[in-house]
Amino acid sequence: MAEFNLQCPVPLRAETVQMAHGGGGRIMRDLIESLLLPAFANPALEARHDAALLDLGGTELAFTTDSFVVTPLRFPGGDIGELAVYGTVNDLACCGARPRYLSCALILEEGLALAELEALVGSMRRAAGRCGVVIVTGDTKVVDRGRGDGLYINTAGIGLVPDRRRVGPERVRAGDAILVSGDLGRHGVAVLSVREGLAFESPVVSDCAPVHLLAEGLWDAGIDLHCLRDPTRGGLGAVLNEIALDSGLALEVREQDIPVAAGVAAACELLGLDPLYVACEGRLVAWMPEAQAGAALAALRALPGGEGAAVIGRVLPAGPVPVVLRTVLGTERVLDLPTGEQLPRIC
Amino acid sequence: MAEFNLQCPVPLRAETVQMAHGGGGRIMRDLIESLLLPAFANPALEARHDAALLDLGGTELAFTTDSFVVTPLRFPGGDIGELAVYGTVNDLACCGARPRYLSCALILEEGLALAELEALVGSMRRAAGRCGVVIVTGDTKVVDRGRGDGLYINTAGIGLVPDRRRVGPERVRAGDAILVSGDLGRHGVAVLSVREGLAFESPVVSDCAPVHLLAEGLWDAGIDLHCLRDPTRGGLGAVLNEIALDSGLALEVREQDIPVAAGVAAACELLGLDPLYVACEGRLVAWMPEAQAGAALAALRALPGGEGAAVIGRVLPAGPVPVVLRTVLGTERVLDLPTGEQLPRIC
Repeated sequence: MAEFNLQCPVPLRAETVQMAHGGGGRIMRDLIESLLLPAFANPALEARHDAALLDLGGTELAFTTDSFVVTPLRFPGGDIGELAVYGTVNDLACCGARPRYLSCALILEEGLALAELEALVGSMRRAAGRCGVVIVTGDTKVVDRGRGDGLYINTAGIGLVPDRRRVGPERVRAGDAILVSGDLGRHGVAVLSVREGLAFESPVVSDCAPVHLLAEGLWDAGIDLHCLRDPTRGGLGAVLNEIALDSGLALEVREQDIPVAAGVAAACELLGLDPLYVACEGRLVAWMPEAQAGAALAALRALPGGEGAAVIGRVLPAGPVPVVLRTVLGTERVLDLPTGEQLPRIC
Repeated sequence: MAEFNLQCPVPLRAETVQMAHGGGGRIMRDLIESLLLPAFANPALEARHDAALLDLGGTELAFTTDSFVVTPLRFPGGDIGELAVYGTVNDLACCGARPRYLSCALILEEGLALAELEALVGSMRRAAGRCGVVIVTGDTKVVDRGRGDGLYINTAGIGLVPDRRRVGPERVRAGDAILVSGDLGRHGVAVLSVREGLAFESPVVSDCAPVHLLAEGLWDAGIDLHCLRDPTRGGLGAVLNEIALDSGLALEVREQDIPVAAGVAAACELLGLDPLYVACEGRLVAWMPEAQAGAALAALRALPGGEGAAVIGRVLPAGPVPVVLRTVLGTERVLDLPTGEQLPRIC
């Protein structure tokens, strides 16, 4: 690594895996594009949805997977068990699918308290029940003390895609409105606050929740959804950049319209974080024709978890800058894809 | 733990996770039965196949998951990448399914060489190609140095179950013949030899391979397969005990008919291991009516990887002992479910 080591916390090029490779930013995107996608090259993977769409005997399925390595295992508003269910349910929902079945693979570190395992597995069961999904298959591995971190969970999920539901960056159009289903950055700040032992006046609680009913609410309202994403690692900033890059269009968002809770904003200011890059685990970003934005907003706000929905911006024709933020001061700021991550291991 | 600590390496009851909880033996079965199955209670999970059978819009799917934590990442005859593909393909095949799609979730430890990651991902691609499956969705997480062990891989798999294929312990009948597709214990010995730096005169090479074409060969030959299993963790001994317990019948196997390579037998003698409990990663155990055993044997032996197939025993009515081994000396030995594991982290 010597020749590339510029004494920078995020190396420009590395010869070994860095924490930033898992951060949801440019370095992770580079790893996926230069190493993983070429290795497994196939159309389903290259579609780069949150899940793969598969035609099995005339039935269209969505199939996705996520591992969860959050530390600590519990945080204000949730735990790794819930996160492992909601994360995969949300990826399915963001492909237009109705989540149905999950797998659950546990990597246990020797020494984990069985009572803690039982509690976290109980949390998975309740989360699955809340989402109407069934955990139908599983696996258990144990690694030696010091080779894990208590518990890692992988879930894979299968959902059914109803007819005529097509969402993805390729359907985003200039003129589309961009909505979020609620305020941003709660999850990352909640995890960080407990990890770093920070005590805020009013503790920030994770937004950790399933979003599939919010998505169904939009479909039920007849919204012609063009794209859906949940802004996890890398937050809203990473999602907007991904969609701009993958659609070839430019996105414009207005700082004054982006909901951020006062506690999150205060914590971010204290910690030197930008809330637009902090992970959510229960929010939806949605693209649709501008004429339907009002109806979409009304549909979201009528649903639990969608009360704080807001129209935050719109899609422009391709331009020199993929994502522009119009600040409260009236200036323009480039909202770039983050390089690495602000917060490691938040999911 | 004090009151249960009998100074035994495998505690009778533990309050924390032990290596034995991942060993494929009684302690792992207890964990699954007492903690995991009750938490997630549902018919698909309780069928206790290697995969769940799901009806989606009239199409029958098999769905399974496995994490791979083998150490070291490479061993004679294979690596973690191949193992992660074959392991899931084999679980699908053991449910009567034709493997179709895999997910791939990587947990990378900070510091893993990217060249090594690329090589192992290439190994996954070749293994997938060999099996005719497509890796359609993935996830990448990074954990801090000292919180992983280079690379853990989770794969989940989806297969299609053709009509009228029903296999499982509930279909096993007294009078069934028991076949294995080749000699046993190679994988565990191969991993152990490199881990412990043992040099045998002729190195033992892992049997790491897909078994789905062996299963298809049996179906194509018109065999009425009652049950299929791949003897991984806990080896043949664990598989026989599982089927005996889950079918409520007794099994009898003949030591002289169970194929074990000379190198594996010698290594096991040296290391104090019983090859009947050592993991395979490319073998099939099959149950079918005794009248079809000859045809099944011929079908297996005609296929690559099935040349060493053998009829090793038969199913008896329920009796006091679930699994009996008739030894080469003419005596009977109880082949019990192992308590913990002989060899940790072999898959």
